[in-house]
Amino acid sequence: MSTVLIVQFIALAVSVLSFGVALWLYTWVKSQPSKNSRVETIAELIRRGANTFLRREYVVLAKFAGVAAILILLFIPHPIWTGGALDNILMAVAYLVGTAFSALAGKVGIQVATIANKKTAVAAQQGIKPAFLAGFRGGAVMGMAVVGSSLLGVTLLFMLTQDATTLLGFSFGASSLALFAKAGGGIFTKTADISADLTGKVELGIPEDDPRNPAVIADNVGDNVGDVAGMGADLFDSNVASMAAALVMAMSLDNGTPGKNVLTVFLYAALGLLASILGVGTAKMGRGGSPTRALNSSTYVTTAVYAAITALATWQLNLEWRIWGAAVIGLLVGTIIGLATDYFTDDTKPPVRHVAKASQSGPAFTILSGVSYGFLSVLPAMVGIAVASFASYLITAPLGAGYAMFGIAMSAVGMLSIVGMIISNDAYGPIVDNGRGLVEMCDLGDTALEITDSLDSAGNTVKAVTKGFAIAAAGLTVIALLGAFIAEVNEAIVTRGLNIELLTGFDIMQPDVFFGLLVGAAIPAVFSAMLILGVDRNAQRMVTEIHRQFKEIPGLKEGKAGVTPEYDKCIDIATTGSLKELLPAGALAIISTLVVGFVGGVHAIGGFLTGNIVSGLLLALFMSNSGGLWDNSKKYVESGHNGGRGSDAHKSAVVGDTVGDPFKDTAGPSINTQITVVSLISSLMASLFLTFSLF
Amino acid sequence: MSTVLIVQFIALAVSVLSFGVALWLYTWVKSQPSKNSRVETIAELIRRGANTFLRREYVVLAKFAGVAAILILLFIPHPIWTGGALDNILMAVAYLVGTAFSALAGKVGIQVATIANKKTAVAAQQGIKPAFLAGFRGGAVMGMAVVGSSLLGVTLLFMLTQDATTLLGFSFGASSLALFAKAGGGIFTKTADISADLTGKVELGIPEDDPRNPAVIADNVGDNVGDVAGMGADLFDSNVASMAAALVMAMSLDNGTPGKNVLTVFLYAALGLLASILGVGTAKMGRGGSPTRALNSSTYVTTAVYAAITALATWQLNLEWRIWGAAVIGLLVGTIIGLATDYFTDDTKPPVRHVAKASQSGPAFTILSGVSYGFLSVLPAMVGIAVASFASYLITAPLGAGYAMFGIAMSAVGMLSIVGMIISNDAYGPIVDNGRGLVEMCDLGDTALEITDSLDSAGNTVKAVTKGFAIAAAGLTVIALLGAFIAEVNEAIVTRGLNIELLTGFDIMQPDVFFGLLVGAAIPAVFSAMLILGVDRNAQRMVTEIHRQFKEIPGLKEGKAGVTPEYDKCIDIATTGSLKELLPAGALAIISTLVVGFVGGVHAIGGFLTGNIVSGLLLALFMSNSGGLWDNSKKYVESGHNGGRGSDAHKSAVVGDTVGDPFKDTAGPSINTQITVVSLISSLMASLFLTFSLF
Repeated sequence: MSTVLIVQFIALAVSVLSFGVALWLYTWVKSQPSKNSRVETIAELIRRGANTFLRREYVVLAKFAGVAAILILLFIPHPIWTGGALDNILMAVAYLVGTAFSALAGKVGIQVATIANKKTAVAAQQGIKPAFLAGFRGGAVMGMAVVGSSLLGVTLLFMLTQDATTLLGFSFGASSLALFAKAGGGIFTKTADISADLTGKVELGIPEDDPRNPAVIADNVGDNVGDVAGMGADLFDSNVASMAAALVMAMSLDNGTPGKNVLTVFLYAALGLLASILGVGTAKMGRGGSPTRALNSSTYVTTAVYAAITALATWQLNLEWRIWGAAVIGLLVGTIIGLATDYFTDDTKPPVRHVAKASQSGPAFTILSGVSYGFLSVLPAMVGIAVASFASYLITAPLGAGYAMFGIAMSAVGMLSIVGMIISNDAYGPIVDNGRGLVEMCDLGDTALEITDSLDSAGNTVKAVTKGFAIAAAGLTVIALLGAFIAEVNEAIVTRGLNIELLTGFDIMQPDVFFGLLVGAAIPAVFSAMLILGVDRNAQRMVTEIHRQFKEIPGLKEGKAGVTPEYDKCIDIATTGSLKELLPAGALAIISTLVVGFVGGVHAIGGFLTGNIVSGLLLALFMSNSGGLWDNSKKYVESGHNGGRGSDAHKSAVVGDTVGDPFKDTAGPSINTQITVVSLISSLMASLFLTFSLF
Repeated sequence: MSTVLIVQFIALAVSVLSFGVALWLYTWVKSQPSKNSRVETIAELIRRGANTFLRREYVVLAKFAGVAAILILLFIPHPIWTGGALDNILMAVAYLVGTAFSALAGKVGIQVATIANKKTAVAAQQGIKPAFLAGFRGGAVMGMAVVGSSLLGVTLLFMLTQDATTLLGFSFGASSLALFAKAGGGIFTKTADISADLTGKVELGIPEDDPRNPAVIADNVGDNVGDVAGMGADLFDSNVASMAAALVMAMSLDNGTPGKNVLTVFLYAALGLLASILGVGTAKMGRGGSPTRALNSSTYVTTAVYAAITALATWQLNLEWRIWGAAVIGLLVGTIIGLATDYFTDDTKPPVRHVAKASQSGPAFTILSGVSYGFLSVLPAMVGIAVASFASYLITAPLGAGYAMFGIAMSAVGMLSIVGMIISNDAYGPIVDNGRGLVEMCDLGDTALEITDSLDSAGNTVKAVTKGFAIAAAGLTVIALLGAFIAEVNEAIVTRGLNIELLTGFDIMQPDVFFGLLVGAAIPAVFSAMLILGVDRNAQRMVTEIHRQFKEIPGLKEGKAGVTPEYDKCIDIATTGSLKELLPAGALAIISTLVVGFVGGVHAIGGFLTGNIVSGLLLALFMSNSGGLWDNSKKYVESGHNGGRGSDAHKSAVVGDTVGDPFKDTAGPSINTQITVVSLISSLMASLFLTFSLF
């Protein structure tokens, strides 16, 4: 058996190991006590709401995926009637498997998150350590499952087909589903969150998770469907896309037969998952430690372990040190970007405090200063990605033609290597947020509330960091996908014997490239606008419903014992509305790519992807960071600064937080997926754009 | 005498004619009655404040220009000690002349605007027609002077030096001054505007131009220094830059001796000014006509006249119809972009009304819906510019190598041909805004107030359109400047006999290009953030001062007769603050260009400029349009919709307007100038970047 094959089996083994770990963690979480009938009842409401949404969403998406699979079958990689039907069948199957895996990742996340939330709440009565562990291990189930299944899917598919292009189909399946899941979940969660805040905190002055508020369960459901399921699908998709892009180039460098480069990709990915497993294992709160430190230190452990074991493997197997260098550069830059993001969103740093102070002069100043810091926060990340791609290009270029682009792809793989850890940290956030909600709704006591508050705040800080990381990773991945696109175009030229020069790049000074560039840059803005308007419309509907309930249900406002609001109505509005709003924005991204490709051809698409990446990164970073900043400014004021709760500064800070909600949880992170989807569809359509374009 | 020379003399003649027209209009405006001692007193305060600011600003900028001129003398186009000192001297002189012309354009604008405002106020007592005419003709003085002097400067300099590169120095002088003038004026005007609104309208509930408000004069001064002087410098600069870019390419196509292509540039520019003169002449309000219609119809007249007379000249002189086509495409697309902008900012269209309605749910919804429409508004303009550059490239490419890029440059010249008319319309805005202020402060009666209100509202609508136009024109111009940059690099390679391949374009897939692209894209965001934070800081200072005055000056708040606030203090704060804040943002743009150039060389600069253009256009359009949208939504609510003045919707709409103020009047339009400055400095430094870069 060749070494390449052995490494692929190792990858399979590691992914199976991660499922084992996930199962163990799941069993552990499930075995924790949660004997409190009120907690059980409310947690059941949340669980049912989340599952209902997921079921209805997946019905819509199954229809979409079915239509897409038929189109893929007919046209991709080439019109089926031109021969080679097997390619098309494989591609359509890979696509469907990708969507199924992505959906499954979301489903698993919801399943465990809606159990871990109540365990966290009940554990908080015992102390911060068990509560932290329940929350973190719940998140880690998701982390292990997502990364394990992406590695499993990519490895199995590659072993069966020996064809990297088919992986692009798998990746496209995952990311097209992620696009809609992210958009739908993002609209759901922010609809509920904004409506609950607006009617509860602002109008009535009742606490965040007051059970009188008809939107409160919908808000908790939203944390799960938006942050857990949506985010899981998103990172599943980035992870698969980075591996797919690297494998497309590795196969081309290995001259079509899996060799040293393919081996490196699988090896590094497998070791990344292994490092994450170790990192998850070490996550524990020390004596008097803070939950933030516990989360961060396990991330650092993962990073260090990864760098060390890949170095060891590179040495043992005599692989290229330059490629190892590229992977480590990606990892380092990812960490640096995370830290820079932290600067702009942490309440111990000047930006958050400045915005909190500016809020004393009114909401306009909250917005203006927040927008400004959001714009500033773009610089370190953009420069970081620029440096990472430049440096990994330079470091790998001496290996020969084609290696430089492979270096960038490996830099993305390196950055995403610790994604298992990142997802665990990220899923921890909504779980403890829900836990906090349960503590409040079920009156589990002030100590438990304080504990979950501190867990929640750690979640917010870490979330900003992981978001910066996710955006940067998506950025590097799509740069690598640009390389994959060129490889696909050239493969089509060669295999079809076309009389066209091979594509080597995209010249900005060519009019079709520039045309694509400008149009591509506009898309993320329009995409964001459509999502935000979706939240806006939907929240207005829900606010109307909440007002109706407060008016028509006697005793609700006053909190009369035994009177409960009609939670289901709000969940239903959020569900129906987000399903209605999720398709147009995603369709815009896909259709605009097709239009540009069929009008301007492959050069225009090169420009289009570039414009899309550049403005997509800019807007995603801006919106995620300003949103996180406003959220934490509000919390900072609430903790008694600049006038504290109920002051003018607080009112302004709430406005900032409300504006930031769809920025950071709907539009910002969806742009990630949008740029990946557009890159993948371009690679898949390469051959068609080559033949059927207008210019 | 050759035809080329004749055409240059014609250009000189037309610019002299425009000065004549300007002088006639100025005399006409001055001869209008304004015998009202209170009006005279307050207008004098405004005039003095504006002149004080301008004087102090020019002192700061003279120092900057002096240092820049010395650096240019030493290093540009090549280090002076390497020989050819005359080139450096010429360049430094051209630079200084450029700054002087730009400063003069601002000064003339202020001079006439601070007279026309009082004439408009007094004329409003007679009726809308004379008031309109006073405002419009005041603006037209500025329009004629700016375009006349840019044509004069470019023509004279070209006739003397016969060298297009020197024109880039002239253009850089104009635009570096414009950058700071725009930033400084923009910070001044919004500092005053926001502070006046916040303390007056919001806190005390007194009208916009209430004389009790200590910031009211500063606010009126701001209209002049920001909107008149700053905008004049901005469009002077775009106009010069578009001609310079076109001439650099024309000279290269004419093989170094002015020929048919150089002729075409001068001819089209001269005819554009001629068309604007005719357009200004026809501007008159018909019976029962609206001022908006009067302004728009004269723009259409100019457009039609321009298309007709350039066609006639092209036919008579047997010039290339394809180039005429490119110019007309630019003009048409400019108009279409203007109309699209109008859709997003006009209060008879859905976006403004939707935002007004959303404001009923609170300020967060005003912001969210406004941001969304602002993002959407980016699409037609970006696609428009993309189509204009693609179409003019395609239409002129058959003329031979190099013509396609020249076609884009001529498209920019075509778009900017009617700039005389655009400036007239744009300067009209602040003049009638000031006029309205004078009517209110001096109690000139309800009819006069209604009349100036309607003139002001027309100004706002037209302003949004002209701003979209200005941004689009800057976009096309900088695309052309990318071509000029390549021409400069290649000239340096050839003249210095370097052993480097000639530059033909910038390949996105090269790592240095991509590196530049990402960094360049971040700059407009950071630049905007710095300006907005500048306004933010400055406004907080002024608000503190206003509060102090209301507290310490007895009888001020109650409006006791004879008690006046200390207007000077507020003017001084706005002046000092904006002078302090204007340098860093501008310096950032210039320094980042130098860093990228010296690190990554000419390829990185190509990417840098492209990223800068793309994200600059995106953010400029977004901020200008969302700002205009919020302003008009507030006005829409104030005119009695969605609850009218004092309602919750109104309070929210005021928040939107305050956020929009620095968006549309400080950051948005400054980005225009920022991208031009960066493009010009790159062309000027081309030779140095070629020699001294790290990679």
